[in-house]
Amino acid sequence: MTALAPLESVDAGIIQRVLDGRWHEIRDRSRELAKDARFAVEYGEDTETQRARVLERLQVLAEQGYSSHGFPTRYGGGNEVGASITGFEMLAMGDLSLLVKAGVQWGLFGGAILHLGTEEHHERYLADLMTLRTLGCFAMTESGHGSDVASLRTTATYDPAAEEFVVHTPEPLARKEYIGNAARDGQLAVVFAQLITRGESQGVHAFIVPIRDDEHNAMPGVRIEDCGLKAGLNGVDNGRLYFDEVRIPRANLLNRYGDVAADGTYSTPIENKTARFFTMLGTLVQGRISVAGGAGSATKVALAIAVRYGDTRLQFERPDGAEIVINDYLAHQRTLLPALAKSYALHFAQLDLVAGLHDTTPDLDAPLERDPAEQPGRRELESRAAGIKAVGTWHATRTIQACREACGGAGYLAENRLPGLKADTDVFTTFEGDNTVLLQLVGKELLTGYRDHFGALDWLGTTRFVADAAIESVVERIGGRRILQRLIDATPGRGDDADLLDRAWHLELFDFRETHLLDTLARRLRKAAGADDPFEIFNAAQDHMLAAARAHVDSVLLQSFLQGIERCDDAAERALLEQVCDLFVLSTIEAERGWFAEHGRLTSPRSKAVIAQVDALCAALRPHARVLVDAFGVPDAALAAPIAFS
Amino acid sequence: MTALAPLESVDAGIIQRVLDGRWHEIRDRSRELAKDARFAVEYGEDTETQRARVLERLQVLAEQGYSSHGFPTRYGGGNEVGASITGFEMLAMGDLSLLVKAGVQWGLFGGAILHLGTEEHHERYLADLMTLRTLGCFAMTESGHGSDVASLRTTATYDPAAEEFVVHTPEPLARKEYIGNAARDGQLAVVFAQLITRGESQGVHAFIVPIRDDEHNAMPGVRIEDCGLKAGLNGVDNGRLYFDEVRIPRANLLNRYGDVAADGTYSTPIENKTARFFTMLGTLVQGRISVAGGAGSATKVALAIAVRYGDTRLQFERPDGAEIVINDYLAHQRTLLPALAKSYALHFAQLDLVAGLHDTTPDLDAPLERDPAEQPGRRELESRAAGIKAVGTWHATRTIQACREACGGAGYLAENRLPGLKADTDVFTTFEGDNTVLLQLVGKELLTGYRDHFGALDWLGTTRFVADAAIESVVERIGGRRILQRLIDATPGRGDDADLLDRAWHLELFDFRETHLLDTLARRLRKAAGADDPFEIFNAAQDHMLAAARAHVDSVLLQSFLQGIERCDDAAERALLEQVCDLFVLSTIEAERGWFAEHGRLTSPRSKAVIAQVDALCAALRPHARVLVDAFGVPDAALAAPIAFS
Repeated sequence: MTALAPLESVDAGIIQRVLDGRWHEIRDRSRELAKDARFAVEYGEDTETQRARVLERLQVLAEQGYSSHGFPTRYGGGNEVGASITGFEMLAMGDLSLLVKAGVQWGLFGGAILHLGTEEHHERYLADLMTLRTLGCFAMTESGHGSDVASLRTTATYDPAAEEFVVHTPEPLARKEYIGNAARDGQLAVVFAQLITRGESQGVHAFIVPIRDDEHNAMPGVRIEDCGLKAGLNGVDNGRLYFDEVRIPRANLLNRYGDVAADGTYSTPIENKTARFFTMLGTLVQGRISVAGGAGSATKVALAIAVRYGDTRLQFERPDGAEIVINDYLAHQRTLLPALAKSYALHFAQLDLVAGLHDTTPDLDAPLERDPAEQPGRRELESRAAGIKAVGTWHATRTIQACREACGGAGYLAENRLPGLKADTDVFTTFEGDNTVLLQLVGKELLTGYRDHFGALDWLGTTRFVADAAIESVVERIGGRRILQRLIDATPGRGDDADLLDRAWHLELFDFRETHLLDTLARRLRKAAGADDPFEIFNAAQDHMLAAARAHVDSVLLQSFLQGIERCDDAAERALLEQVCDLFVLSTIEAERGWFAEHGRLTSPRSKAVIAQVDALCAALRPHARVLVDAFGVPDAALAAPIAFS
Repeated sequence: MTALAPLESVDAGIIQRVLDGRWHEIRDRSRELAKDARFAVEYGEDTETQRARVLERLQVLAEQGYSSHGFPTRYGGGNEVGASITGFEMLAMGDLSLLVKAGVQWGLFGGAILHLGTEEHHERYLADLMTLRTLGCFAMTESGHGSDVASLRTTATYDPAAEEFVVHTPEPLARKEYIGNAARDGQLAVVFAQLITRGESQGVHAFIVPIRDDEHNAMPGVRIEDCGLKAGLNGVDNGRLYFDEVRIPRANLLNRYGDVAADGTYSTPIENKTARFFTMLGTLVQGRISVAGGAGSATKVALAIAVRYGDTRLQFERPDGAEIVINDYLAHQRTLLPALAKSYALHFAQLDLVAGLHDTTPDLDAPLERDPAEQPGRRELESRAAGIKAVGTWHATRTIQACREACGGAGYLAENRLPGLKADTDVFTTFEGDNTVLLQLVGKELLTGYRDHFGALDWLGTTRFVADAAIESVVERIGGRRILQRLIDATPGRGDDADLLDRAWHLELFDFRETHLLDTLARRLRKAAGADDPFEIFNAAQDHMLAAARAHVDSVLLQSFLQGIERCDDAAERALLEQVCDLFVLSTIEAERGWFAEHGRLTSPRSKAVIAQVDALCAALRPHARVLVDAFGVPDAALAAPIAFS
């Protein structure tokens, strides 16, 4: 293993510039904003106080122009989606309720009007929602249908006589559930419902429904309930919405991809119902990328607190009587450092994801395209976003938990931030798409490459498709899309497997895992073709599919990590990043070593050598742990925890 | 795999009787008590309301005699330690703050006076602390020395002129930290401090120090701070204590194992300082067993909620259009069922632990023995308690988290209990002994068998001992203590490895893992003998030591599980328990399959077969999941979550 440059020659600032990336300016602005006393970390407030405070903070963000980046210039926006997502990511170092409230208002509510509405809607709503003159909700999820959007039960039936839609909740399980901004502040809701006109259902569409009047009372026919206390994020006023034959004007249909004429005639620029559905859902990708970024920021804060405290906290003594700093213990290093390395991998993947979103989002100032040609790379981006959101939010939950435990009893005190970080981010694994469902999406996308072949979002769509198609060609197509192929071709191997730090071997192993899992998965699902119960076959392979998706995300992370290192020109810092990447790779291989052994890719001595190498990397990186968390650039005001400054 | 009896012929009540065990009466009393409206599950209260409520509930427990079981009859107690711990375990299905407050008052404060004090102290304090006329603290932990009790810095210096001890906090890090009952209610504290008399330190002893006067003000020289908001357990008033030359009468030394005469002469029935220290610390074992039991109960409630909700919650559709219940998904089964199986294993181990504690605790009504002969099995019990506390509390944290996620957004709502269960139990992994430190204790005990050989609780004690001793004989001695040996001898193998459900193979594999890890660990540590820095060698083997301890605990769990099944006489229920045990074993082997492959104990095809077998067991047990959680006997009032009754 190459020895690293001495600690004193490594500059956290240089690494921070690499991590800050393309939208570094908004990161610095956000760090400045964190110093504003109005954003000081608070805890222990009751729900109503917290809700009021978060709304005040949202107002400050609006005044500072934080809301504008993702909207067209003509309505006061900045037309810079990348900056919008990056600013959102930085918010997550501080008040996570504010993050989610901002995401609901500008990302989901505003995003739905922007992407699903037309010029008339933009004209009417965008400026007001940016400045918070209008507060809104994104009412998609239903109690009985969280992940299965195509099966939503709420209806919007067109009445040509009145030229109105009648929005209705036909059963209790069709109530809109967990809707942010609903319990206290929201005036409007974008409601997703089955559009019915002339007796025919045209699938899920979005409608603007006023839920509160000017006196802030619920509108007639609208019932609003408060979801009450949650594990965290109690500054967000989540509520439930029920509609009892609520009438809205025809113009309140967000009609970019589907419209109803005064006489009830339905028209759409995208004839294929499935394609239309997915085009509408495509607007959700921004939310998933934002959640992934937010999870990353919260994880960084937790790691920074735990690493800093671990450098001062003593436990037991050496033979010479000197007390031992807890970061010097191997078990402690193994708790924190592989998680730190993976956070770096996820950060680089997030940079690529945000850039990908920015580059595949049409110019917001250009005239509206109602049947947009798909941007190259957009479909893969959606799959990546799903995968990175799932893996990143699970990583956040696990890592923040590990940091809490690594800080002992001090980590359990609210003042040290870890309880709040854990509780607030916990729901990230199940909202904006449940992680298990998202990983299945990734698996499906990998299997087919063409989602149009699916009848719906459900698993059986996959089963049917896989059974229909010539499976070999699917596998071949996957082969052609191997994510690490280019890097493998560009990285000369050393001809033998002797060196555990040989990057070519890393790439080859990651690629093998992904490709093999996918290949065998496709073969397995093929059996569903003639089966009596294709669900049983699909279900038996569910874990296999999730494993394939995870392997794919690992390849994505490695690719982004290596490309990110390329952007660091300074030798000492680059060498450090290479070693962090080594730890990410080797700890991933270690965690999967049972699988690699089963597939003949790790002999018993080599498998043991991987474990020893992870130990060695932990020891080598331990002196640099503080630099590595400093490079995240968490502002002191967000760090906040007394133990981080002990 | 043997097919199970049809679901309708399995009686949850029969399984519950097996699980309820020896102290089933107090379990039933506790289930009755849960119906009392004063114990209804609450959430969202502010800290002061919660603290007041918990104290009220504690009073009800005292009135109902819950506090009496663990104390001598002559002071109003029940002299039945097993009942005391079992009652405590049941409390954890409801209000976990109450559990901890009760544990502090009667287990730690009361336990210290009972076990470290003499008749005079018993006479003076026991009746009052049982009835809550006196509320007390257990002030052991210091801010700078959480796990390292031998290094505590608080001093109690004897002043023969005044016949008083002077209790003093010499530096801020020596403050007593996280002390339950300190911030609001405590009148007395049992303070652990270095006893100094005639200029010589005699090591850590316990002293009764009044901290509040009759008007509830802090006593002169005592500074009390409130630890403030915590992640959970906010009904417990944790505080910090600083002592500034606080004088207490000589009689306030809890003098069972060490006394100071009026002239300052120190005397002790246990001359060996280390042995004395460990005898005093032995009183902590009851706390660890109680925490393990509490963690188990909270885990059971979480599993019951998740399994019940998973039987009604729908997600996506089958080919015939019927919606799929989420418990039918393999990934969901794999989340819940292996955790459920391990909860059974831990429950049986807990039954044995409580029985072991009860049977090795001297009759509380007998005259006090000041140099008690060690009860047979007591030393092993302490090690078991440490191991099961560590493994059980980590299992609780992981499982409750998994249940929260398995319930989606509903699992994030406070009304559904999972947020509270998670937050309240989170600190269990780091209090009453940090889990990592406890597992090291287990490892050390396994390595040596004789803790008297250690100079202190620190790791280097082990290193030095291991370096000194003839290592081969250590390994031999371990060989003689193999926990599963008797069961292996009694279980006929089938002559080949063909059957993955062959119990003899299970036992052999668990035993091999434990023995091999320990054997190689001992060999590794031997190198520390001539090393320049023995800490480095010890530290490099830390993960190895933790793995050995975990393997040992797995053997303990398997042993208890199998012995527990023996106590079930009904064929259908017994077959079900056998299959739950199969899932516990196979999912453990699956998780460790990388290790088994590295050590030549799992071929690649067999390793894959283990995975398939876990899938098959999940499918087989899925219809019985509800029965298995019903058998925990969680009262409806404790289940409480609306989703559990949907």
